[in-house]
Amino acid sequence: MTQRIRHPGLAGKLATAAGAAAHIRPGDTVAMSGFTGAGYPKAVPQALAERMERAHAAGDPFRVKVLTGASTAPELDGALAKVDGMELRMPYQSDPEVRSRINAGRLEYIDIHLSHVAQHTWFGFFGDIDVALVEVSAINEDGTLVPSSSVGNNKTWLELADRVILEVNRWQPDALDGMHDIYYGTALPPDRQPIPLVRADQRIGEPYLRVDPAKVVAVVETDAPDRNSAFSAPDESSRRIAGHLLEFLAHERRKGRLGDRLLPLQSGVGNIANAVLAGLAEGGYRDLEAYTEVIQDGMLRLLRDGVLRMASATSFSLSPDGIAEFNDNVDFYRERILLRPQEISNHPELIRRLGCIAMNGMIEADLYGNVNSTHVAGSRIMNGIGGSGDFARNGYLSVFLAPSLAKGGAISTIVPMASHVDHTEHDVMVLVTDQGLADLRGLSPKQRARQVIAHCAHPDYRPMLQDYFERASAEGFGRHTPHLLGEALSWHQRFIETGSMRG
Amino acid sequence: MTQRIRHPGLAGKLATAAGAAAHIRPGDTVAMSGFTGAGYPKAVPQALAERMERAHAAGDPFRVKVLTGASTAPELDGALAKVDGMELRMPYQSDPEVRSRINAGRLEYIDIHLSHVAQHTWFGFFGDIDVALVEVSAINEDGTLVPSSSVGNNKTWLELADRVILEVNRWQPDALDGMHDIYYGTALPPDRQPIPLVRADQRIGEPYLRVDPAKVVAVVETDAPDRNSAFSAPDESSRRIAGHLLEFLAHERRKGRLGDRLLPLQSGVGNIANAVLAGLAEGGYRDLEAYTEVIQDGMLRLLRDGVLRMASATSFSLSPDGIAEFNDNVDFYRERILLRPQEISNHPELIRRLGCIAMNGMIEADLYGNVNSTHVAGSRIMNGIGGSGDFARNGYLSVFLAPSLAKGGAISTIVPMASHVDHTEHDVMVLVTDQGLADLRGLSPKQRARQVIAHCAHPDYRPMLQDYFERASAEGFGRHTPHLLGEALSWHQRFIETGSMRG
Repeated sequence: MTQRIRHPGLAGKLATAAGAAAHIRPGDTVAMSGFTGAGYPKAVPQALAERMERAHAAGDPFRVKVLTGASTAPELDGALAKVDGMELRMPYQSDPEVRSRINAGRLEYIDIHLSHVAQHTWFGFFGDIDVALVEVSAINEDGTLVPSSSVGNNKTWLELADRVILEVNRWQPDALDGMHDIYYGTALPPDRQPIPLVRADQRIGEPYLRVDPAKVVAVVETDAPDRNSAFSAPDESSRRIAGHLLEFLAHERRKGRLGDRLLPLQSGVGNIANAVLAGLAEGGYRDLEAYTEVIQDGMLRLLRDGVLRMASATSFSLSPDGIAEFNDNVDFYRERILLRPQEISNHPELIRRLGCIAMNGMIEADLYGNVNSTHVAGSRIMNGIGGSGDFARNGYLSVFLAPSLAKGGAISTIVPMASHVDHTEHDVMVLVTDQGLADLRGLSPKQRARQVIAHCAHPDYRPMLQDYFERASAEGFGRHTPHLLGEALSWHQRFIETGSMRG
Repeated sequence: MTQRIRHPGLAGKLATAAGAAAHIRPGDTVAMSGFTGAGYPKAVPQALAERMERAHAAGDPFRVKVLTGASTAPELDGALAKVDGMELRMPYQSDPEVRSRINAGRLEYIDIHLSHVAQHTWFGFFGDIDVALVEVSAINEDGTLVPSSSVGNNKTWLELADRVILEVNRWQPDALDGMHDIYYGTALPPDRQPIPLVRADQRIGEPYLRVDPAKVVAVVETDAPDRNSAFSAPDESSRRIAGHLLEFLAHERRKGRLGDRLLPLQSGVGNIANAVLAGLAEGGYRDLEAYTEVIQDGMLRLLRDGVLRMASATSFSLSPDGIAEFNDNVDFYRERILLRPQEISNHPELIRRLGCIAMNGMIEADLYGNVNSTHVAGSRIMNGIGGSGDFARNGYLSVFLAPSLAKGGAISTIVPMASHVDHTEHDVMVLVTDQGLADLRGLSPKQRARQVIAHCAHPDYRPMLQDYFERASAEGFGRHTPHLLGEALSWHQRFIETGSMRG
């Protein structure tokens, strides 16, 4: 037994990564931990990839189906993709090696609402789970597991898998112990009960994950950092996007539709989200709450400054600096951060009840407010829908944000017709770009188009959009959502053919 | 006072329809009752239309914004549309006069998830509600209201409106008294609590609607039937669609994913839904439950035969024969039918908790499982999304059904790319046509396409779809969701230009 492995029976199952990987068989469905580069297994996937490479060299096929919480890192997705070791990947990915294989047609990928994954696995829609491969930060004396820096779908994987492999990662802070809230009250229809959560800071579960020790086939010790990259300061475009959103929130407060403490915030990750958080701090907000998926460095700062009162998420995705900050102020943060399973962080019931303000990035939006979050030119996947649909459909406000241009101006974020739709006209309330903000609530499609063109489109593309809209309104087949179908996707086709949407 | 108007104060506000309509002003937002041709006001909208016509003849503009539960009838939508009396209509419509004006660009229409309407009105997203115009079946001595044949958004309209006009319709069966369950436990974030409903047959509210008598400006007596048309026997195509679905349900039972009593059924209205219900009866099912929007004649039969144990809905939309059957067996049906506000019948929290089997029609689906429920050729609205998104996103199963051909074969229901998306690839599990059923669960986009082509496409269009898919897979920009953007909407364009999608 070690300091992190306190259960004698499980300590007896200590194995090397290669030894653990030997429990995974060709064709298995392997459900792994990991959410936004945090809490993924770091040793066994690489050992598995090496086994696969040897098998392939010997002419034996060896591929598995891989489920996770969300995105992972090169040690998992990258390693398995490089040896063509995955026949199916779901429910989300962001790894360049994985993405290139998906878009080359060599790897099948299923892009799923993050709130659907656990229940659809329970329903049996994805077949049996052969192996759960889960990183934890410690094993308690009673065999319960101290979760790692993300919870994701781990509860479900541990419950449903035939065989369990645990990676115990010493690198994860001791202080994670007690920060999790694992809800064991879920059930299958017709036996479901209301989930009792009514506040973002409420505990409704237990701090530890349960596992049947008899199912555990191997325990591997690791000491390896999460993927997380350093916080980068928001650029000018992101600051302008954030500025428009903050102005809108102030407007909503003046109208009495939001209070001084707003409503629980959900925000995606990255530059724009960081700029929004920074803007909230500058705007004098205090005592806000986050009910979101991922806690990044920016949120630590807001917690320290009292801008945020607390944050609930499913993943704690910090940079090395963030980890240091957390470790230096453990007692402070443990009072203010809760990590939950993603079926709870993203649950439609809870997001609607709490009235989250949903803020997510997008690839493109069309004149009528349909949003594409996943596909470049309708066919190439970028990452996936993630939890954006869970929050956009059910939140109090659904906001989508992006710069008005991409690829140095070769791509307009605002297009005549979205080349793929992840969020329909029925689910999109507010669009924001560096150019401005379009409030689409209570507007018909044509009214929306005028707002989107005027406030969100880049001036380089605005006249082209206006021209399309006017001609479609005058000549189109129908005048409810005016389109010229022969042209609707021509901007994307031009981009494919010439490298630019410009005429 | 009359037998149906038992509150002295409100009896004192009896007025003619014209007198009541005089309380409605140009530019008002008027929130009306009505859901699927049941329980809509029958006199005042026509009186209002006459007033508008006189105003227009005198050169005075007079238009209002109209919100309802869902679709109404010629006496409401038809009458107001004919005089161009609506500047905005939401959240659903199916009236030919309204539809033609929307598609001519003369009437703005907003198509909203039915579960969103009440809360978004409460949030203030649609501005103030000036007038509530609500049909009820009686006014009690204490001033509470016996709801009519639909509940829809009436609770919300009565709470939020500045002025209230009631139509008391003697034609509605006395026996409606006691069949409603009006939940008054809703609140706005951050004060929301779990909704306590855990079974389809559970009462969580009160039988009557509340109204502040001081807000009531007029009470009008009517004696007029609902719109409802007669039940028509399913045609051959519908029977085949239903047959494929019933075979699938039997398969799911054999796999242990559904029990003998299935899970609460939601089904749209019309021929296919009737065929599915008839098929359940023939299939020997017993003691099923419906948690749905509309109860039509077909469901009465199933209740009588014990196929259905009970049905929960928001609208009771019966033909004259159905009304006679109901009146002849009042005691039986009152035990087995509950009518709820549409924010409860369609609530994401409850649909997910109960695990509804969602069965809805569609206009078209594409190779990759994106469904268009609302637009012909991407621009002309048909009716609206209604509750299909509420049930499809949150149900245990989401099934979309349609004949494989429309317009005598000029239109293929399965197309390369949907011309409008209401239900994304993330929300569609099963597609059914007369040709067969495609089970899309756990499949990547390309795997889905093969199923859809093989099982759902009509043989006349199957080779064209196969050809598109093969070329897109070989030459497309991306191979995750292969498309040829120059062709993706060409079938629709050909239909617009030539009247047929055939090559």
